[in-house]
Amino acid sequence: MSRVPVAIIGASGYTGAELLRLLIGHPHVDVIAIYANRAAGSSLADVYPQFAGRFDSTIETFDADAVAARAKVAFAALPHGASATAVAELRERGVAVIDLSADFRLDDAKVYGAWYGEHPAPALLADAVYGLPEFHRDEIRAASLVAAPGCYPTSAILAIGPLLAAGMVDSAGLIVDAKSGASGAGRSPGQSTHLPEAGEGIRAYKVAGTHRHTPEIEQELGKLARRDIALTFTPHLAPMSRGIFTCVYATPVDPARDAAAYRAALVDGYAGEPFVTVLGEGRVPDTAHVRGSNRAHVAVAYDRRAGRVIAMSAIDNLVKGAAGQAVQCLNLMRGWPETTALDAVALFP
Amino acid sequence: MSRVPVAIIGASGYTGAELLRLLIGHPHVDVIAIYANRAAGSSLADVYPQFAGRFDSTIETFDADAVAARAKVAFAALPHGASATAVAELRERGVAVIDLSADFRLDDAKVYGAWYGEHPAPALLADAVYGLPEFHRDEIRAASLVAAPGCYPTSAILAIGPLLAAGMVDSAGLIVDAKSGASGAGRSPGQSTHLPEAGEGIRAYKVAGTHRHTPEIEQELGKLARRDIALTFTPHLAPMSRGIFTCVYATPVDPARDAAAYRAALVDGYAGEPFVTVLGEGRVPDTAHVRGSNRAHVAVAYDRRAGRVIAMSAIDNLVKGAAGQAVQCLNLMRGWPETTALDAVALFP
Amino acid sequence: MSRVPVAIIGASGYTGAELLRLLIGHPHVDVIAIYANRAAGSSLADVYPQFAGRFDSTIETFDADAVAARAKVAFAALPHGASATAVAELRERGVAVIDLSADFRLDDAKVYGAWYGEHPAPALLADAVYGLPEFHRDEIRAASLVAAPGCYPTSAILAIGPLLAAGMVDSAGLIVDAKSGASGAGRSPGQSTHLPEAGEGIRAYKVAGTHRHTPEIEQELGKLARRDIALTFTPHLAPMSRGIFTCVYATPVDPARDAAAYRAALVDGYAGEPFVTVLGEGRVPDTAHVRGSNRAHVAVAYDRRAGRVIAMSAIDNLVKGAAGQAVQCLNLMRGWPETTALDAVALFP
Amino acid sequence: MSRVPVAIIGASGYTGAELLRLLIGHPHVDVIAIYANRAAGSSLADVYPQFAGRFDSTIETFDADAVAARAKVAFAALPHGASATAVAELRERGVAVIDLSADFRLDDAKVYGAWYGEHPAPALLADAVYGLPEFHRDEIRAASLVAAPGCYPTSAILAIGPLLAAGMVDSAGLIVDAKSGASGAGRSPGQSTHLPEAGEGIRAYKVAGTHRHTPEIEQELGKLARRDIALTFTPHLAPMSRGIFTCVYATPVDPARDAAAYRAALVDGYAGEPFVTVLGEGRVPDTAHVRGSNRAHVAVAYDRRAGRVIAMSAIDNLVKGAAGQAVQCLNLMRGWPETTALDAVALFP
Repeated sequence: MSRVPVAIIGASGYTGAELLRLLIGHPHVDVIAIYANRAAGSSLADVYPQFAGRFDSTIETFDADAVAARAKVAFAALPHGASATAVAELRERGVAVIDLSADFRLDDAKVYGAWYGEHPAPALLADAVYGLPEFHRDEIRAASLVAAPGCYPTSAILAIGPLLAAGMVDSAGLIVDAKSGASGAGRSPGQSTHLPEAGEGIRAYKVAGTHRHTPEIEQELGKLARRDIALTFTPHLAPMSRGIFTCVYATPVDPARDAAAYRAALVDGYAGEPFVTVLGEGRVPDTAHVRGSNRAHVAVAYDRRAGRVIAMSAIDNLVKGAAGQAVQCLNLMRGWPETTALDAVALFP
Repeated sequence: MSRVPVAIIGASGYTGAELLRLLIGHPHVDVIAIYANRAAGSSLADVYPQFAGRFDSTIETFDADAVAARAKVAFAALPHGASATAVAELRERGVAVIDLSADFRLDDAKVYGAWYGEHPAPALLADAVYGLPEFHRDEIRAASLVAAPGCYPTSAILAIGPLLAAGMVDSAGLIVDAKSGASGAGRSPGQSTHLPEAGEGIRAYKVAGTHRHTPEIEQELGKLARRDIALTFTPHLAPMSRGIFTCVYATPVDPARDAAAYRAALVDGYAGEPFVTVLGEGRVPDTAHVRGSNRAHVAVAYDRRAGRVIAMSAIDNLVKGAAGQAVQCLNLMRGWPETTALDAVALFP
Repeated sequence: MSRVPVAIIGASGYTGAELLRLLIGHPHVDVIAIYANRAAGSSLADVYPQFAGRFDSTIETFDADAVAARAKVAFAALPHGASATAVAELRERGVAVIDLSADFRLDDAKVYGAWYGEHPAPALLADAVYGLPEFHRDEIRAASLVAAPGCYPTSAILAIGPLLAAGMVDSAGLIVDAKSGASGAGRSPGQSTHLPEAGEGIRAYKVAGTHRHTPEIEQELGKLARRDIALTFTPHLAPMSRGIFTCVYATPVDPARDAAAYRAALVDGYAGEPFVTVLGEGRVPDTAHVRGSNRAHVAVAYDRRAGRVIAMSAIDNLVKGAAGQAVQCLNLMRGWPETTALDAVALFP
Repeated sequence: MSRVPVAIIGASGYTGAELLRLLIGHPHVDVIAIYANRAAGSSLADVYPQFAGRFDSTIETFDADAVAARAKVAFAALPHGASATAVAELRERGVAVIDLSADFRLDDAKVYGAWYGEHPAPALLADAVYGLPEFHRDEIRAASLVAAPGCYPTSAILAIGPLLAAGMVDSAGLIVDAKSGASGAGRSPGQSTHLPEAGEGIRAYKVAGTHRHTPEIEQELGKLARRDIALTFTPHLAPMSRGIFTCVYATPVDPARDAAAYRAALVDGYAGEPFVTVLGEGRVPDTAHVRGSNRAHVAVAYDRRAGRVIAMSAIDNLVKGAAGQAVQCLNLMRGWPETTALDAVALFP
């Protein structure tokens, strides 16, 4: 089987580097070019020393024609807004695109506008497929433009999705309390991720519905619940590099159901899923157990006294929450086994 | 003013060591003896090298008569059960006690029994005062047996207490989502706090109403709300040593109230409080900003879209959540300025 | 090509788990059984949740006959002493062994005795090959008993080896100052690796020639220098999980040589090496850049003013310092490409 | 006793904030103004939330006349170069100054020039006293311009100073291998202290005599040894906020001396010192045991086999390595007890 030529656009960010880490181990892919305007002209190994001696390449300035001439598929890992513009150019030239920005995750340009500003390419929204294989696998297989989900939405949807879809929890009153490692803030250094200040503390940020992942979580959970959802989302910055641990608090529809029933719904919902592990009864996920892997660990508990279902997940924000999920989508789009290049075990300890 | 002789019982745990750190800087106190059965006979500086060259003493085996002969006040920082037994012996001998275990925090011996086993000294429960000065200051002043609150309860009550007391949020449906550093697990090493496994991950534990601090939070918030409360409490272990960050999610009684109204209630509730700082609008607490200090940072946000009040706090679990609060109670009991020995600024960065 | 059946003995430690992580991705190997007496009967996924959903197996009690009946190669990752006994049983039964303990690293049973106690199987020492491919590749290819090097020795030898072999630095007066993550201490929790105490501090331990890796470093560097070596080795515990950064301080033979000459000697010495990257001039290794990978980053600087050569290396102690190197040896022993199952890029950030 | 009015110039950096933390607890001092040009006009509590509710003040733009009108003593915690200029203005106006920059640490303007550029106020160098009380106490008492030592020099000199002064180790061939927390890099965020990249790795930097603290260490150790010294200094960045652990490797003058003799020399050298603790035989310092305190833990080991003395120290880089030592100098200059405001026990765990 000849290899598929692939380009990575936005290789200087963590998501771009993580894509490269996964794709250079992919048996059916050739990474033929990497782009990053800020770092153009640099050697990859100077920007990311972990590639020294393993893979090197000069980072190029993005040019849609050049990409189209060489690559069949492009991964776009650019900031929002910039991504939509590049994606539009690539789609015009017939390149299949997996976009890791927020630009094609929201179905409605108006909602996008309210959170991100005017959409640069609204006409493409109808073509875009939300790249969460566990809930959109068939659409992804047929897509030529995939919007890889946000890290927080992935963690929240995987935790509570099957329970909402099964009608076991109320779609009103959901609370998503999520704790992320600092790599989610990207590669640009800032006060809030400066080691002396961030290395030994934890805090919430963008509370009370101000984080941009809020409408994305609501949209996707709304589809599963088949009704509009407004929920509370609280992201936190935890003193670590990778990982998101999420608790979704929900009201049970039938208070008499026991914990086993909720767990059974997860087991059913994820039957055959290659990357979602429903933990055994009484077990709780831990981000340390999925670091570096595309796997999600999920579990559910029921607090009968207080009448609350607690659905939990742990993922690696850069893998299942970004680059790994994007590669999973690529595998689906190309008809390859879904786990290709993604079956590494988490790096623990 | 002559100094008051004080004993620390249970000096080999983190809480005992933290008491000592604070009390040896206290101008009106003499720490005349430290007790810890497991470490008896050792030099303190061998058990806790941070004291080398600054304070040293041989750790002794606990003996109630010896304590009563020398000390006017004892701090008990023993495991639950063991603490009640020691406290009973000390109270019989007229020693005032500030107990940092769970043994005298619950008013009802039956509730205690359900969570901890049979109470060793139920007759003393009526004498014990819950040592949270912000809500029980006058009782503490008059007490000779104070139960210093748990770290999680302190963080939860300080976050949401004034809003419940003011009737601004519903007492039903509360959710307490709290993230703690590993020192909360105590000094004994275990798999869950082994650096290679815990240093780069986050997870919940004892979910769905199984953590022993649950009834304590419910009891105290119930007093403020003047009705029984059943709530959901989810503790997490964060990869750091000290600090608890807590979000309390609550349903507003009047959805039309804005965020400023909730903040005003906190400002009112904590007017004159020496150790609670209500952050400015839009600010979020951070455990890094209170590490090593007795201060609590609190804030509140209102998610109007989703109809949810989010009350937040950051404390140092070993100071405001344990030893510092206990010293604050001592100051109240003795009529000293409440901030004596407690006004150090947090160690940041 | 049919797969080679392989057993892992000592699967409950970090080294055993890391072997499994690497070997289940190996295209020519079947892990047919995993052994760990302490955890026998448990499911692997209960002991190491990172394998849940990806690889599961019941951990068995070690039995040499059973291993010999099923496996062609065994990896022994047992404590010293126990390992030699198991290895002897396996070798009697014709099983090729790669041993990750200290038992077969020292050529001389007397030296072993001085550091570890009487050797349980001294007759086997003559058969054992020191498994550092960069300096013993041909011997490893022909071996049926390989002693995988210690993590500290690997880091020290890779840093300074070529300079000693080239006669550019004095073999007398070497100092090895090495900083390791806490996973090097193994999986059993202890005070020195308890997160609250170890997570925010650094210290040396077993200083002044008391660490057992000392004679191993001396033996191997002595072979390269072709004379006996006595050196100073100072290990440190750094507040992180994985990685060793090592500085080797050496006296130059010719003070007039410049830094480029030392770098050139490293480049020559490691020409064609698949896992050693000599960094560019002025670059310094960082353990974060090799975490999870079998790669070593090395560099050298020359302090002309003070007359000192500083050779530096960064490795992942569990991969190039243990399990990865062992798999590299397996590849050599079986004639497979040396990078098989080992070409993953480091997990950064 | 009336309080002495004191100003802090450069309050937006970590050293300035740490000075403030210590000085607001000082019974004989009033911090009457804080200056920081970049943050001028801001509330201190906005820049450093740990002060919220405890001490607040508006940060001002530096003006020498205003300082002179209000303060008797000024602490300058500015970048090198800028500091000398401000100090000159203050000294002209009769303000006593404790300078925490590098500007007055080197006796020789030529040496300063070689490492930092032309000195802005060379005439003042003769007045400046090196503020390491353990070796310059009497001069500090009489000084009106004190240069507080660098963090690395403090750690190195405290470790090996008495052994050099006693002529027990050779002044040639010294190696200083030091590991620092990231707060030493200052408050400005950068790639090298970005949590995702720095939180789980360790590396050297500015190796082979390129770090600016090199001439300072050489100058001060040279004074103790009474001869010129050229040494090798290797700083490392460890994944933590505070602390420096230093090993100084030295050649013994008399190889027959045992470890106890070296320890005795430290005990003698530091007899009566309020902030230096010589650990017991076989003990090794740990930065975790001095975090937040002005104490240094020192120890020495002798590697007889390899003929090397290993002198070790642990300090908090922001306290004994900067602000605490500066306050210690203030106490000496004013004739107050040397430990005033500095006797807090380290924050452990």
